Amino acid sequence: MTGKPSRRQLFGYAGAAAAGAAVTGGAVALGNSSSDPASAQPAAARTIDPYGDHQPGIAAASPKHAELVALNLLPSTDDQAALGRLLRLWTKDIVALSAGRPALGDTAPELAVANVALTVTVGFGPKVFTLPGLTAKKPRGFSAVPAMSHDRLQPQWSGGDLLLLVGADDPVSVVHAVRRLVADAAPFARPVWRQTGFWNGTGSDGKPVTGRNLFGQVDGSGNPAPGTPEFDSTVWSTDGWLTGGTTLVVRRITMNLDTWDELTRSEQERAVGRTLSNGAPLTGSVEQDDLDLEKRDAEGRLVIAETSHARLSHHSTNDGRRIFRKGLNYVQDTGATRESGLIFLSYQADIVSQFLPLLARLDAADALNEWTTTIGSAVFAIPPGFREDGWLGRTLLT
Amino acid sequence: MTGKPSRRQLFGYAGAAAAGAAVTGGAVALGNSSSDPASAQPAAARTIDPYGDHQPGIAAASPKHAELVALNLLPSTDDQAALGRLLRLWTKDIVALSAGRPALGDTAPELAVANVALTVTVGFGPKVFTLPGLTAKKPRGFSAVPAMSHDRLQPQWSGGDLLLLVGADDPVSVVHAVRRLVADAAPFARPVWRQTGFWNGTGSDGKPVTGRNLFGQVDGSGNPAPGTPEFDSTVWSTDGWLTGGTTLVVRRITMNLDTWDELTRSEQERAVGRTLSNGAPLTGSVEQDDLDLEKRDAEGRLVIAETSHARLSHHSTNDGRRIFRKGLNYVQDTGATRESGLIFLSYQADIVSQFLPLLARLDAADALNEWTTTIGSAVFAIPPGFREDGWLGRTLLT
Repeated sequence: MTGKPSRRQLFGYAGAAAAGAAVTGGAVALGNSSSDPASAQPAAARTIDPYGDHQPGIAAASPKHAELVALNLLPSTDDQAALGRLLRLWTKDIVALSAGRPALGDTAPELAVANVALTVTVGFGPKVFTLPGLTAKKPRGFSAVPAMSHDRLQPQWSGGDLLLLVGADDPVSVVHAVRRLVADAAPFARPVWRQTGFWNGTGSDGKPVTGRNLFGQVDGSGNPAPGTPEFDSTVWSTDGWLTGGTTLVVRRITMNLDTWDELTRSEQERAVGRTLSNGAPLTGSVEQDDLDLEKRDAEGRLVIAETSHARLSHHSTNDGRRIFRKGLNYVQDTGATRESGLIFLSYQADIVSQFLPLLARLDAADALNEWTTTIGSAVFAIPPGFREDGWLGRTLLT
Repeated sequence: MTGKPSRRQLFGYAGAAAAGAAVTGGAVALGNSSSDPASAQPAAARTIDPYGDHQPGIAAASPKHAELVALNLLPSTDDQAALGRLLRLWTKDIVALSAGRPALGDTAPELAVANVALTVTVGFGPKVFTLPGLTAKKPRGFSAVPAMSHDRLQPQWSGGDLLLLVGADDPVSVVHAVRRLVADAAPFARPVWRQTGFWNGTGSDGKPVTGRNLFGQVDGSGNPAPGTPEFDSTVWSTDGWLTGGTTLVVRRITMNLDTWDELTRSEQERAVGRTLSNGAPLTGSVEQDDLDLEKRDAEGRLVIAETSHARLSHHSTNDGRRIFRKGLNYVQDTGATRESGLIFLSYQADIVSQFLPLLARLDAADALNEWTTTIGSAVFAIPPGFREDGWLGRTLLT
């Protein structure tokens, strides 16, 4: 064990404020345009700028804590004007909460704290595109996910007309922000499900890492890197009002840790196609090595097995189409019984062409299906970001 | 907003490793004897030493995340020898997990990570003192808490023969450690309830703070400070095998945020007797000011009201007897409905003389009873710590 390096050691900056800005500045710069005002405010440290071309929580590193709330529209929220009133309100809330300031009417203003890397991501469910005036605005490739043969979908984790996804380094801040946003939505929409998750994207040495799910696997290695052209073309829509936005598929996946633990490590690694120790493909040595899908062992078997998760989810088997996936671990207790799993988040410009073929292939053959079951599913169109003079959803709702 | 200060700024040390050690070294040094080996290992940074006169999680700062698991003994765990086997096993697990090493037989060894300030606190419930050979070892003043008039106790949050309390800065580490400890207990005991909580003891500027509950109140101001004679006499037992240990009362308290929010801020402050802004007594200006219980306002009313929580829980109204309280916020979702509350932890050498009179007084008159309801209650004797050549519970079980 060694001492945790200070930020200035990690980032090589001379000043603590500059180093702090580098931590989140990366996320902001990656997710938003280079004209982002955060670059002129290095003192903002662990505050993530809410403004930009894109909602900032998407490209940002996975938050330590997150809560997803799906809401259904009340019958009276029956047109785009009503929805616009809610979205203007949420925009003001988001600007305040991101900065650690209480939102208007905050009943626990002291719980609004700065420097917790809080982000709020908002999405529109399928129902929104049935409202008068919005039926022609349904994005290209925005589709509900059909039930797969291995799915055991439960209504209480599925669907929803609106999404709030709040992430932060501190769970109190997440709970407080969600409470404010849900309270302000009360005249317009009511929660139908809530999912709480957590992720550890920091190594023991304080450096960013991909993170692990509760099977112990490094989870998310194959992702396109935020800031690259590949990421941009994978994630950001160029379709009308959604330009600069994206779509999100939320899947709640239970993981049977008890039966998984009955496997040997090599059986576990063969099911995934990657090592447990560092997430490297079984044909490579480090996590970011690309897969060699042709390589065979001495007995002539494919090293990355036909049914391995890594092979079946590799973009080369998906006509080169990618997704950007993020995971949140969850535990759900019923009395003394604990269920463990993953809240799987897939961002892509187009669900039909990028996500559905991948999902169908995994459903048909993924070795992991023996230990995982999807019990919830929902889709949302994620509008682009907003500027100081704008508001979230304006390109759709005006 | 300003940049988050680096540790070296906060602690005024020249080296990052030394500063890191100061963060947790404080907790260790406060909670344990001055011969604690941590003082010779400044590089241990965010790792809390498992060895010492006391279990280290008690005096340590509240963890960001914690899980409490109560277990009931299986019928075959019917004597102190069987219990001793479990406690020896847990001791080895705790030593490994605290250092970020996988425990023996760990099925997800990569989830054991260092530098997350992980602590494990173990306790014995009342049933333990009914086992052959242990009936005479029931600690002085160790008593179940009788149901209070405002309690609405639910069996699923109450009782238990053994307690595991795992805290860390990272929730994945908490979940992993609990899984290992519960798995190793399987031949001996089975979980009966689990409670998950969180706390934010770090201010926006990175400095330690008391922290707030979900009403937004600063919660825990009146505590004796770890490392003081007052803390030692409040918390540590001097009774036979429990010497260096303590007792813990766990209360699960729901908080009705909706009706609480209907109050004005001054009504909220009057119910508590402290300001919301910084937790100062209504008769003072900063959090650590002592209460002036005689002070009256211009109308002759007591400034700290008769029924205020701060007055009724003040040690001067409890024959000078104190407790050491720690809180963990929780949220519990049932479908779309969220319950919010506090997992209240009270440490004291003697439940009967220190805790019960306080509780009875609060039950009779505390203004907060209108917005809070206790739904779970449990008590545990917390054995002293252990040294490199020892094991947890040895003073009781041999």
